[in-house]
Amino acid sequence: MKKFDLVIKNGTVVTASDMFSADLGVKDGKIAAIAENIEADADEVFDAAGKLVLPGALDVHTHLAMPFGGTISSDSYLSGTRAAACGGVTTVFDYPVQHTGETIRGVIAEKKAVLEKEACVDFASHCCITDLSDGAIIEEMEEAVKEGITSFKCFLVYKKEGWMVSDGTLAKLMLRAKELGAMINVHAENPDLIDMYTEQFLKEGKTSAWYHYMSRPEFVEAEADKRAVHWSRHLDAPLYLVHMADKEGLEACIQAKEEGAPVFVETCPQYLEFTCDVYKREDGRNFVCSPPIKGQESQDALWKAIKNGSIDTVATDHCPFQSYEKDWGRDDFTKIPNGCSGIENLYPYMLDAANSGKISFSRAVELCSTNPAKIFGCDQKGSIAVGKDADIVIYDKDKDFTISVDTMHSDCDHTIWEGKKLHGYPVRTFLRGNVVYADGEFKGTPGMGRFVKRSPRKLK
Amino acid sequence: MKKFDLVIKNGTVVTASDMFSADLGVKDGKIAAIAENIEADADEVFDAAGKLVLPGALDVHTHLAMPFGGTISSDSYLSGTRAAACGGVTTVFDYPVQHTGETIRGVIAEKKAVLEKEACVDFASHCCITDLSDGAIIEEMEEAVKEGITSFKCFLVYKKEGWMVSDGTLAKLMLRAKELGAMINVHAENPDLIDMYTEQFLKEGKTSAWYHYMSRPEFVEAEADKRAVHWSRHLDAPLYLVHMADKEGLEACIQAKEEGAPVFVETCPQYLEFTCDVYKREDGRNFVCSPPIKGQESQDALWKAIKNGSIDTVATDHCPFQSYEKDWGRDDFTKIPNGCSGIENLYPYMLDAANSGKISFSRAVELCSTNPAKIFGCDQKGSIAVGKDADIVIYDKDKDFTISVDTMHSDCDHTIWEGKKLHGYPVRTFLRGNVVYADGEFKGTPGMGRFVKRSPRKLK
Amino acid sequence: MKKFDLVIKNGTVVTASDMFSADLGVKDGKIAAIAENIEADADEVFDAAGKLVLPGALDVHTHLAMPFGGTISSDSYLSGTRAAACGGVTTVFDYPVQHTGETIRGVIAEKKAVLEKEACVDFASHCCITDLSDGAIIEEMEEAVKEGITSFKCFLVYKKEGWMVSDGTLAKLMLRAKELGAMINVHAENPDLIDMYTEQFLKEGKTSAWYHYMSRPEFVEAEADKRAVHWSRHLDAPLYLVHMADKEGLEACIQAKEEGAPVFVETCPQYLEFTCDVYKREDGRNFVCSPPIKGQESQDALWKAIKNGSIDTVATDHCPFQSYEKDWGRDDFTKIPNGCSGIENLYPYMLDAANSGKISFSRAVELCSTNPAKIFGCDQKGSIAVGKDADIVIYDKDKDFTISVDTMHSDCDHTIWEGKKLHGYPVRTFLRGNVVYADGEFKGTPGMGRFVKRSPRKLK
Amino acid sequence: MKKFDLVIKNGTVVTASDMFSADLGVKDGKIAAIAENIEADADEVFDAAGKLVLPGALDVHTHLAMPFGGTISSDSYLSGTRAAACGGVTTVFDYPVQHTGETIRGVIAEKKAVLEKEACVDFASHCCITDLSDGAIIEEMEEAVKEGITSFKCFLVYKKEGWMVSDGTLAKLMLRAKELGAMINVHAENPDLIDMYTEQFLKEGKTSAWYHYMSRPEFVEAEADKRAVHWSRHLDAPLYLVHMADKEGLEACIQAKEEGAPVFVETCPQYLEFTCDVYKREDGRNFVCSPPIKGQESQDALWKAIKNGSIDTVATDHCPFQSYEKDWGRDDFTKIPNGCSGIENLYPYMLDAANSGKISFSRAVELCSTNPAKIFGCDQKGSIAVGKDADIVIYDKDKDFTISVDTMHSDCDHTIWEGKKLHGYPVRTFLRGNVVYADGEFKGTPGMGRFVKRSPRKLK
Repeated sequence: MKKFDLVIKNGTVVTASDMFSADLGVKDGKIAAIAENIEADADEVFDAAGKLVLPGALDVHTHLAMPFGGTISSDSYLSGTRAAACGGVTTVFDYPVQHTGETIRGVIAEKKAVLEKEACVDFASHCCITDLSDGAIIEEMEEAVKEGITSFKCFLVYKKEGWMVSDGTLAKLMLRAKELGAMINVHAENPDLIDMYTEQFLKEGKTSAWYHYMSRPEFVEAEADKRAVHWSRHLDAPLYLVHMADKEGLEACIQAKEEGAPVFVETCPQYLEFTCDVYKREDGRNFVCSPPIKGQESQDALWKAIKNGSIDTVATDHCPFQSYEKDWGRDDFTKIPNGCSGIENLYPYMLDAANSGKISFSRAVELCSTNPAKIFGCDQKGSIAVGKDADIVIYDKDKDFTISVDTMHSDCDHTIWEGKKLHGYPVRTFLRGNVVYADGEFKGTPGMGRFVKRSPRKLK
Repeated sequence: MKKFDLVIKNGTVVTASDMFSADLGVKDGKIAAIAENIEADADEVFDAAGKLVLPGALDVHTHLAMPFGGTISSDSYLSGTRAAACGGVTTVFDYPVQHTGETIRGVIAEKKAVLEKEACVDFASHCCITDLSDGAIIEEMEEAVKEGITSFKCFLVYKKEGWMVSDGTLAKLMLRAKELGAMINVHAENPDLIDMYTEQFLKEGKTSAWYHYMSRPEFVEAEADKRAVHWSRHLDAPLYLVHMADKEGLEACIQAKEEGAPVFVETCPQYLEFTCDVYKREDGRNFVCSPPIKGQESQDALWKAIKNGSIDTVATDHCPFQSYEKDWGRDDFTKIPNGCSGIENLYPYMLDAANSGKISFSRAVELCSTNPAKIFGCDQKGSIAVGKDADIVIYDKDKDFTISVDTMHSDCDHTIWEGKKLHGYPVRTFLRGNVVYADGEFKGTPGMGRFVKRSPRKLK
Repeated sequence: MKKFDLVIKNGTVVTASDMFSADLGVKDGKIAAIAENIEADADEVFDAAGKLVLPGALDVHTHLAMPFGGTISSDSYLSGTRAAACGGVTTVFDYPVQHTGETIRGVIAEKKAVLEKEACVDFASHCCITDLSDGAIIEEMEEAVKEGITSFKCFLVYKKEGWMVSDGTLAKLMLRAKELGAMINVHAENPDLIDMYTEQFLKEGKTSAWYHYMSRPEFVEAEADKRAVHWSRHLDAPLYLVHMADKEGLEACIQAKEEGAPVFVETCPQYLEFTCDVYKREDGRNFVCSPPIKGQESQDALWKAIKNGSIDTVATDHCPFQSYEKDWGRDDFTKIPNGCSGIENLYPYMLDAANSGKISFSRAVELCSTNPAKIFGCDQKGSIAVGKDADIVIYDKDKDFTISVDTMHSDCDHTIWEGKKLHGYPVRTFLRGNVVYADGEFKGTPGMGRFVKRSPRKLK
Repeated sequence: MKKFDLVIKNGTVVTASDMFSADLGVKDGKIAAIAENIEADADEVFDAAGKLVLPGALDVHTHLAMPFGGTISSDSYLSGTRAAACGGVTTVFDYPVQHTGETIRGVIAEKKAVLEKEACVDFASHCCITDLSDGAIIEEMEEAVKEGITSFKCFLVYKKEGWMVSDGTLAKLMLRAKELGAMINVHAENPDLIDMYTEQFLKEGKTSAWYHYMSRPEFVEAEADKRAVHWSRHLDAPLYLVHMADKEGLEACIQAKEEGAPVFVETCPQYLEFTCDVYKREDGRNFVCSPPIKGQESQDALWKAIKNGSIDTVATDHCPFQSYEKDWGRDDFTKIPNGCSGIENLYPYMLDAANSGKISFSRAVELCSTNPAKIFGCDQKGSIAVGKDADIVIYDKDKDFTISVDTMHSDCDHTIWEGKKLHGYPVRTFLRGNVVYADGEFKGTPGMGRFVKRSPRKLK
């Protein structure tokens, strides 16, 4: 029997803290050895000379096959995770929604059944809570955490849709999460102001995509960010703010972190790359997502926090819709389904930022892999270390790549990233030692992805 | 020939980002393999079962054999580095002082000659600049950096001693350091206020050790901290604040970091463990160091920053004096030589904090090893990774230890840490694969330490 | 015909900016002359030698004859305004509540009818808005402002009682007030957290008055303060925060003011005098008001802002309940009617603070008279100046006074101020030149108070 | 004998807190009556119908006949105070400089002798301290304060000129001032950075007026501002920052005030009107003053603080130089004498801001008259109130005026304000009841100005 199933030779390994030349040996889907020189006694040997050897990314924010905006998001579990694999993402987190009367585990189980058939990479689910069902959910959380479902999401928006929770529900969930070592994710925008502006704009005949932004400007997000952070600080309870897009909210998070509050911040590549000016474009509707992309000041603040460590993770909020669906809102921004593509662009985009010197490669790994794994309890993921799952991305720093819908592996018929040029690109992805992507081609098999059972956060 | 010189088996490896079970293989003084299972085919095999395997610490702030306070600090290069080895410190930074007319390289060379004979662990020197010698120092810095001397220190205090530099000199050094990828370390206290209070207290007959603190209270340090940070922010030039001890100064650093300024902060174990109340003790003079230990609020702020990532490094400012020397100031606090022991306590103290759950082991490693190595360009140091120097500490989490002058390896006849109980202690230190400490005993040889040639910081 | 109806001789006049010796001449209810020496050719001559001559206070926050907590607050319009007169308050603002379907002017007219019969001092009403009635209220505001009703109140609490407005309603009112030069007053507490804690405490059998405070602690008020301030800053719309009681909320106001936001802050004497420790007293229920009195840190912050100018007004939130009503909550803090006495204590308390040197007399006048008059558009009130209404208080700096239910003129059978010793006390109050209080006795007549028609704020 | 010497009829009186129609009666140089209607039984009757009646301004920052920059400032005590009178300034503060060995009272006495002959308005002097003369100055301060000299100035700049004091000297002066109820004024800029940049620019041939600004940019002032404020906060000692010109320093002051520190802030009209862009003009040298005029962000911050109350006073730093003297620096900015005209423009400029609605007239009065009088202990000045000196300005809100060297009353041959259009202008100035300016003409007599003996600040 061979000592290793896979040997990756001559690469430069990158972890969140180090960067060094080494060979990797993989056995039974796990990293078994990292050494100066590993003999190529393996079923498969990959020569990574001149290339970086990175841990696979975790995209901890996606919406696959999601009923939303009067339709269903364009990527199925299959196509979404296929695209993920081709972008170096080896673990995908979905956001199924619990409604009144449903149980957490019921909701997760239903999705898990589909994912087990379709998923091309490993997967986990945050559960969106919309109703405590008279306390039953608070009760059930303990069991859910035991089963490895350790994160829950609250919407402070989508009031009409019935998804929004009150501050009381949020506070109860946060306190319970604190007890259990779980995490509460929050989508923070203020629905009342959105409604006020929307009503006004529609009345005034202001219906273009630009008014999507104008009805949800910086301060409308910031208020809800700050409110969620306020509860976290004063309840000393864990809070993970998803898709942070505005400066003022971010600054509140940073201050809370300095004070020792258990606040974690995620942003998305679209907020780092674009500004609200995209909504003035003819195809502005394609960029419509919530929260909307903000102005230059917010983008600058986000990048500063990416650089100095104040943002914890980058994820995508991947939730694409087909062009014909986006077109529903040509004459009324409220009819545009909210969401964009991103799952395949996350890691290449952040690694390009490293390749161009904006951040270090270690920081890119930390943001896309190590931190998400730690924050959400994926003990087997997030680094190149002995014993970890052999989720590995080979990155060619010299490969030029232009993003286009033709080269992407999503089912969506367009991408907001069309034409974006990257310097450096993933050339291979291994999922637990198995090739799932190589040189532009998906090489995996639907169903090879596995449920990631997660650990609660260690309590102080 | 054996594959490895040393194999460490069955331990739990800790890096700044990960913690995992693995064997280590060391060859030619470097870490050659990290793997699930390394066959014990080596000259030396150490069974680390149940123990942590950590990178050796870097104590980047020491004063050995230093002429100061009318005498010379009690630890020679030999005894100081011997104590270092026994405390898990495998690289020591000294602070030789350049005076008017002297060159950087001259100053360093002189110390290096002694260190090469005496050092028991690897070593480097920051050079304290007291005078630009009409610009010659600014000129020379380029050559010094090329030779691996990449950090320089300015005193904003010690005016009478002739060590203080003006804001102009500091600014010129910072701008030059920015150009060269070098670092400027700063000791920040305001000499004028110290002199004002000292004069007043002596006049009033207030001469006990307590008045050492009272003449250098929080705000007297904070002013200089804030001034140095101000220059760093506005010149966008690197600043490393040594021995940060007060809350207000620390907060200015944190704010500057958030704004993206290249500010780095060091604190010392004495500021984390004690408060200014020690100066009211009968043996208060033994705790006299500058800046003095501050009040509870400052200690709390320092711990918060240790926990949330805002402090970058912990080092010791090791500068002990014998009891009879400390006694010179029994009746006049201005006659107490300033400085305390610490070099052997740094890593055990911070690891105890991890062992008790205050911080993670990864964070302790980051503060004492990874960050100091990165900030000061010690590319071969600071982590457990393939290719790094095999500077390794074996830590027994279950070993109870009480610090006492009898169990320390310094030449100093007392320690401020006397009686401090630690849970967990280093049981072995390897310097480039060689045992230099084992189970309470120094096992190294004077002269085995090597000069660490450092790299400049990468410029953005 | 005499030149003046009233001459006040030899006093020291205090305005918000000056303090000087002068005689005052009053004619037709207005101040007609301020001079070095006015001949005593008048119907009435008052010798104010050695005394201060102050403008009457405006208590811009009272609840008289108010249905609340299952009963009606203990002071009728008559007894409440009688007590006001005896405490140097010459204008009282009430807070009638509009319910769904009611109009602003209808609500005010109803109260005005009673006040015109009963009021012993001048009066005005803020109108509490609980429902926009499909926009009719927004529409009506213009007319209301024209009629001199220029301030409106929103509750961010009292959700169950049906008084709370949503953020959307608040924002719409603020934007409309901005247009019209009106003011939006806000009672800021978060109902959800109050409910969460209340439910928990009752379940745990924690029913004493202390749990009134514990269910509405500092951060529960602060959240709503900060939210209201957020809207003011970003909508650039006027906000008057009533009864500010906590440090964090106050700091948000101060920061917003510095940024130029039209934020105004009121606090109450009870928050300046007591701390939450009163709720541990046997008679703790008597101190139950909302927001509850907070801890020492908040009290300190309030005093700092009183001193440095950051708080704009002090008013009372006078809303007393009889002992037997307070007793309803002996075994259940949720059954205690919320509110305390204060209307007669406001000016004496703040003037005592001036007399003891905490603040200047000019500042006391500014807080209790000049600022409230300016903020709420009472052009004839708020100062000693030619042409103003002759609402004048004579204050004896040397008179010692102990507050007691026996010496107060309210109908309530107890007072939280019982036993409070003051140095200095009002000895006479003139309402438009007429004596309404002298040396401990009420001297006015119910019905002599007049409606104060107010001006809109000047728009920039 | 007539009851009044002067009656001003039908005007609108403005104080820092009120604005009302009234007649004024003046007797023996003091305001004797303010009333609805004063019979015109007086030597002089002035009809102020349609006009504002304001207290005379205090220009608390001027340099008259001052040896500086290798010459003497262009306005003598005579011409400077003549211009003051014509601009509505009725009290002028000068800044004589004490050198080593000189006494405070000697310095003041020398200037007083000249002023008594030449001054056209009332006068006082702050004394600039450059050396403590072995503590003699600290000693003498008590006597000086008794004699009505209650304010002292420290330079944190002008190191080469020998005027700069160390932080120790500043701290000692501040602590002494705290004891005595005196004030310490500070000119805050950092000389070292100025010298560093100046040396560099001269070496690079960058010699235009623009490099005056570039060698003293925002952060170079801000550092010294922040340092002075730091001492004030921590010593709880009074600090008056003169000619605040930068945002960052201002923000430090505001924060300190919020914390209760006795910090007071002065700015000048030139910082409110111009930006550093003037230094790019062909006549940039005429605008050269120190600190230099800053960028737009700073100007915006200053205006915000003017509006919201955070700046206490506006004064001029009047220190003009003739064109031929300014020309010395055509080819070398270091040779331009530092200083500009302003004494005649202060009050008209700030009143124009009120007239255009940026601030209220009361606020303009507060900034230019009431606050300076209070801060510097001029008990007889600063308001329209019975008993105050009858220093009165009649202001015509409708008069259009264009500033020009031809219409100014200074001896300087140019003005930076040339061409500035104002809406509203003073038409008459009374000094203690005597006309000193009317309708464009100086009407006073040199020597009619009197020394203002000042009171110490009341200690808490």
